[in-house]
Amino acid sequence: MSTPPIPAKALQLRSLVTPDARLELSLAEVDVPEPGPDEVLVRIEATPINPSDQGLLFAMADLSTATAGGTAARPVVTATIPPAVMKSLAARLGQSMPVGNEGAGVVVKTGDSPQARALLGKTVAILGGAMYAQYRSMKASQCLALPAGATPADGASCFVNPLTALGMVATMRAEGHKALVHTAAASNLGQMLNRICLADGVGLVCIVRRPEQAALLKSQGAVHVCDSSAPTFMQDLTAALVATGATVAFDAIGGGRLASQILTCMEAAINAGAAEYNRYGSSVHKQVYIYGGLDRGPTEIVRNVGMAWGVGGWLLTPFLQRIGPAEAQKLRERVARELKTTFASHFDREVSLAQALSLEAIGVYSRIGTGAKYLINPNKAG
Amino acid sequence: MSTPPIPAKALQLRSLVTPDARLELSLAEVDVPEPGPDEVLVRIEATPINPSDQGLLFAMADLSTATAGGTAARPVVTATIPPAVMKSLAARLGQSMPVGNEGAGVVVKTGDSPQARALLGKTVAILGGAMYAQYRSMKASQCLALPAGATPADGASCFVNPLTALGMVATMRAEGHKALVHTAAASNLGQMLNRICLADGVGLVCIVRRPEQAALLKSQGAVHVCDSSAPTFMQDLTAALVATGATVAFDAIGGGRLASQILTCMEAAINAGAAEYNRYGSSVHKQVYIYGGLDRGPTEIVRNVGMAWGVGGWLLTPFLQRIGPAEAQKLRERVARELKTTFASHFDREVSLAQALSLEAIGVYSRIGTGAKYLINPNKAG
Repeated sequence: MSTPPIPAKALQLRSLVTPDARLELSLAEVDVPEPGPDEVLVRIEATPINPSDQGLLFAMADLSTATAGGTAARPVVTATIPPAVMKSLAARLGQSMPVGNEGAGVVVKTGDSPQARALLGKTVAILGGAMYAQYRSMKASQCLALPAGATPADGASCFVNPLTALGMVATMRAEGHKALVHTAAASNLGQMLNRICLADGVGLVCIVRRPEQAALLKSQGAVHVCDSSAPTFMQDLTAALVATGATVAFDAIGGGRLASQILTCMEAAINAGAAEYNRYGSSVHKQVYIYGGLDRGPTEIVRNVGMAWGVGGWLLTPFLQRIGPAEAQKLRERVARELKTTFASHFDREVSLAQALSLEAIGVYSRIGTGAKYLINPNKAG
Repeated sequence: MSTPPIPAKALQLRSLVTPDARLELSLAEVDVPEPGPDEVLVRIEATPINPSDQGLLFAMADLSTATAGGTAARPVVTATIPPAVMKSLAARLGQSMPVGNEGAGVVVKTGDSPQARALLGKTVAILGGAMYAQYRSMKASQCLALPAGATPADGASCFVNPLTALGMVATMRAEGHKALVHTAAASNLGQMLNRICLADGVGLVCIVRRPEQAALLKSQGAVHVCDSSAPTFMQDLTAALVATGATVAFDAIGGGRLASQILTCMEAAINAGAAEYNRYGSSVHKQVYIYGGLDRGPTEIVRNVGMAWGVGGWLLTPFLQRIGPAEAQKLRERVARELKTTFASHFDREVSLAQALSLEAIGVYSRIGTGAKYLINPNKAG
């Protein structure tokens, strides 16, 4: 296998918010880093566009205003940012920010440490930002070497979705729940969570928004699938909660009343067997963790579920900090072992960095939850 | 002091929900209980009408439909219950339920155990339901003997408000926060919490809804008082949060956007000193506990505070269970020691059981938060 020579400079995708409320996406030419003694240089060949990347990438700009400029090789996309969100962006004003949480590629150069040298030529997955770039240096200890035969595309989504899905199950267990609910359950992450729960014997209630998503999950063995567009949704969900005993939910939607509906159905399911009236509702704690924002509107909680309830944010990084490095490493090793089965990701299209900045591509992958899933190969020609 | 003879039967206030969606409040004549060996019989002379009693008492009936019946000595009040809430009342349909969480009175008869006999003639405070009654038996071990000179009225609110206020401060400490926010802060509970925080050196941000409430709290030494009716409320609250570092709030309102505004201001206060942009918001956990429902409408959370946030229910009983009996006993002993200072309650009016069921009285004390505070003396004539 011949390796192309390592250039002195290479491309990196950048997101800039200007003081006049414009988003500017572009490709910067940056120095290819020289790996330190404990580091390796990775030629990135696969990096996914996850929902968790899009906040930093698009800065909540109004993408209907996006216009294309620059050249084919160096496109520049600009869009206007609504005044209401500018305040929350104050800390990044004027900073040209690299993007991309995770990626995979081939180690093309290493530092002198034995651990770094051992990775030369290996395909590795890495996490840590600035992955929408042709090259990225990384501590050797933070690289996940992929099993033989795995391509960078296989390993591109090694961290965010797999660890998030495993984190949901681990959080469920740590907080004393026996089963869990997941919304937007037909996503790549949702399908992964379904495979984990089937493998581990964990009760899972999948909530989807369309019949074809329900059919997809059922074809993958999902037992409890509730379609929120069905007129019987509340009854269906309550029945699934009675069957599983789920009292924690992970919600990717965020806005509207879905979180509240889940709490209401949980309380109904708990009380289905209760004999005695309790004026404060059941004493069983019911929790909804919001980990995404497919609906950016306010979360509306109708407080008809007693007092033992909680709604809050859930994020991968604090979860990993809570469990500590040893437990986190166990999760990563499971991901590597089951990379092509439990943790397989599906991508609809592979694009270059320049192609990722075409208005047509942005129009598709920015529609989180309904758009297609894109994979960037920063070293793809085009 | 001569004690009136103990009757065979005595009055007890009852709340009944009928299958045809009517609330019926009445006075039942029930047997005066015979204390068991470890028990005492308390002649109740003071029992408060707390917000936490009103859910059971009124069953969310529409009190504008209340009509008076019965006789002056045995009034019967009926009101219609909105269909929407009947489902949540299914478990109490047709059960005539006693009411009243806490009260105080004189021990007029005891069982044979030394602990019970030691209480004869003592004024004690008790907790446990069915306090809107002329007599109540209770385990001697669960009676809190009041200090010399304390009247039943002094001890009537020994448990719910004092332990709730102490529970807020204890929860704040247990969850790693350094100061707290309280809404509806001019209530009896809020004034008590202010005295606790002043005594213990705990930072407290009081949120009130009217200028005269702010003035009342400031006259009692409250340092940070924010009036939500002021046009500068959000700036005032943010400044108070910067000054105190409060990252947990206890909210008696529940509905609307106040909880969300508190989270927003907490995040602004945390970020006031932050230099670096974090796309997920600050990593400091911000928590609002809803412990009341002055506004029964939905809680609306605008998710502009990053991912480290939570909103949920908070209730005294599970808190006491979490800390265990030894810690709970320490809290009760502090209440007894500081009964006439830190934990003093103010009542606007004392009424008999029959007077408590007059439409005029109901019209006043049912307006939680703005109505006057009533104390029932079940052994008062009238």
